[in-house]
Amino acid sequence: MKPFDFYNPTRIIFGTGTFARLGKEAARYGKKALLVKAAGPLAKMGVYAKAETLLSEAGLQVVALEGVAANPKLSSVREGIKLCQQQKLEVVVAVGGGSAIDCAKAIAVGAVDEGDVWDFFTGKRAAAKALPIGAVSTLAATGAEMSLHCVITNEAEKKKYATHFEVNYPKFSIIDPELHKTVPRFLTACGLCDAITHAGENYFIGDRNTPMTDRIAEGVILTVIESDKVLDEPDNLELRANHAWAAAIGINGLTDCGRGAFYYGAHTIEHAVSAHFDVAHGAGLAVVHPAWLAYLCEQDPARFAHFAGRIFGIKGKPAKEAGLAGIAALKAKYKSWGLPVTLKELKVPEDPATFEKIAADCLVDPDSGIKDKKIVLDVLARCK
Amino acid sequence: MKPFDFYNPTRIIFGTGTFARLGKEAARYGKKALLVKAAGPLAKMGVYAKAETLLSEAGLQVVALEGVAANPKLSSVREGIKLCQQQKLEVVVAVGGGSAIDCAKAIAVGAVDEGDVWDFFTGKRAAAKALPIGAVSTLAATGAEMSLHCVITNEAEKKKYATHFEVNYPKFSIIDPELHKTVPRFLTACGLCDAITHAGENYFIGDRNTPMTDRIAEGVILTVIESDKVLDEPDNLELRANHAWAAAIGINGLTDCGRGAFYYGAHTIEHAVSAHFDVAHGAGLAVVHPAWLAYLCEQDPARFAHFAGRIFGIKGKPAKEAGLAGIAALKAKYKSWGLPVTLKELKVPEDPATFEKIAADCLVDPDSGIKDKKIVLDVLARCK
Repeated sequence: MKPFDFYNPTRIIFGTGTFARLGKEAARYGKKALLVKAAGPLAKMGVYAKAETLLSEAGLQVVALEGVAANPKLSSVREGIKLCQQQKLEVVVAVGGGSAIDCAKAIAVGAVDEGDVWDFFTGKRAAAKALPIGAVSTLAATGAEMSLHCVITNEAEKKKYATHFEVNYPKFSIIDPELHKTVPRFLTACGLCDAITHAGENYFIGDRNTPMTDRIAEGVILTVIESDKVLDEPDNLELRANHAWAAAIGINGLTDCGRGAFYYGAHTIEHAVSAHFDVAHGAGLAVVHPAWLAYLCEQDPARFAHFAGRIFGIKGKPAKEAGLAGIAALKAKYKSWGLPVTLKELKVPEDPATFEKIAADCLVDPDSGIKDKKIVLDVLARCK
Repeated sequence: MKPFDFYNPTRIIFGTGTFARLGKEAARYGKKALLVKAAGPLAKMGVYAKAETLLSEAGLQVVALEGVAANPKLSSVREGIKLCQQQKLEVVVAVGGGSAIDCAKAIAVGAVDEGDVWDFFTGKRAAAKALPIGAVSTLAATGAEMSLHCVITNEAEKKKYATHFEVNYPKFSIIDPELHKTVPRFLTACGLCDAITHAGENYFIGDRNTPMTDRIAEGVILTVIESDKVLDEPDNLELRANHAWAAAIGINGLTDCGRGAFYYGAHTIEHAVSAHFDVAHGAGLAVVHPAWLAYLCEQDPARFAHFAGRIFGIKGKPAKEAGLAGIAALKAKYKSWGLPVTLKELKVPEDPATFEKIAADCLVDPDSGIKDKKIVLDVLARCK
């Protein structure tokens, strides 16, 4: 096991009915809140009206940032920062999925900074302070509610980059499965896939003597796979809860401890793809993740055989065969959930120029561990 | 899954060589430290001298509380509180196992309080503030380094009670396997057992739809069992690390999420036993835990069959038979590690008067979930 720091101070408030605690929890951190709202059906469903009522009843003055889209844009971040600075807002509350929460995180660091917020994403500067963040997670997927990660798309430059600042851990996050009931089937499937990939990236990277960390990661993947019945039973709050808690555990740091490496290759490639083609993150991962794993499997088949045994019960085969069977089983799951598993299905052109552009973008991503564009081209060629 | 809050803000600093970070980390929290030292061989090994050097080099003034024994005593707590109050100490640093850390936790709440610290343990009052705590864990066992729990023995009243205050989470805990190398075989075995019981108490209590939480608990138990080779390879830092990280995960809150109940019955009984007979906590648990599980198995054999399957691969038997086989396998592990598995081996008299006294103590323990002394008598009768 390699040395590590584990630190995650987010208070998770989990369970049906916990949305009601939003006001009281947010009031611990200030009197004036920016409410970051995701685009989509939540407004129509009355979720924002309820959030505003809860915050007001707790004595908070609320200023809203409307319409934060999937793959949240730098322009939304800048707009939120301006609102915070002009109106001296004290706490940022996100209600939505990973996009709203990530937007809130970027706003929170930008609001207390004099410079350009994009500098944090290009790696020019690190953030040491931020406004306090509260989140109400309405979608089980990115785990943004319990992570320090933040991914923003610079739509002008077609770049989708990540930051990882400790100050970006939400002070609290409410995960109320009741709010997940109306998530449509496709987005739920994207969320299942996203959660698996978080536990299934670093699992194959770094030190191999990490039995406790491995078992948590395997627990995430197994729990998410078991929860896939939610696709046919969208109102089943128990399945929603199981998916949501596994998604949060999958990227809260526990699945990385002791590996001594952080290398989210599938994410790097997916970010480059979705920066250009604005695909749903989970759908992009359903295509890229199995291809990335197939590439990695060439280098350490034994590790993939271990994975195949633990997750799919595949035993008694030569390592590489077992490993590839495990990856195929995972890809079959993604497909069975109605997710695309090829670039074609994702409507991403498969021509060399596009591949070159994506590969070049991966290499300049300051967060990327990929040092050779041939790796990206190899992985993209496997996305079929 | 039942609603829950999960909150654990302790920074874990893990790995060989991380002891060196003690001074810098502690200096974040004050200039004057109480150093809580465990009784035992650490002084002779130079661990305290090194801790004092590290703290001094970081600009801290150090006052020592010497000789905190296993089953830490209220008298040590009172002595530490007096030192903190008289000398206006700002941070409490524990170097040792769970006893030193628990003593530091009790001191930390008592030092900023006007009343009697024992009130917190009898449930008269709750603690809302505490001095910041830092810990260097020298023994993988109680998980005190990553928990809010604190257990203190009132030696005059022969009572061993627990508190669970959020303010008692250490600000940071250093887990350096290098410091665990010299832990003797018996204490290491006690630590293996203790870690398993933490994950293996609430596992059998409360809501049954907790697949993510279950898998973390199973991961702890499986990882600890695999790590038992450390008994024959005390210098193996990888095994020490695996044991230590599993022990910390086993009681940091993650193995309770969603169960909607907290019922550490084996611990309650063991606390009553060790309050009278001052046995090593892990050794007491090796006797009481399997007996407690055998009692619980009568009520829900299916759950124990699930446990037996996941941990020991026991399949294809009727539920009760499988469940009891799982408990027997666990008891056999404890025995194989050289731990006592009967009250007789623990040198606790098996007479009715002793049993009555232990049972009565369990019922008055303010932290106990046991409402009927017959349950305790039933469990004690199984401790053979």
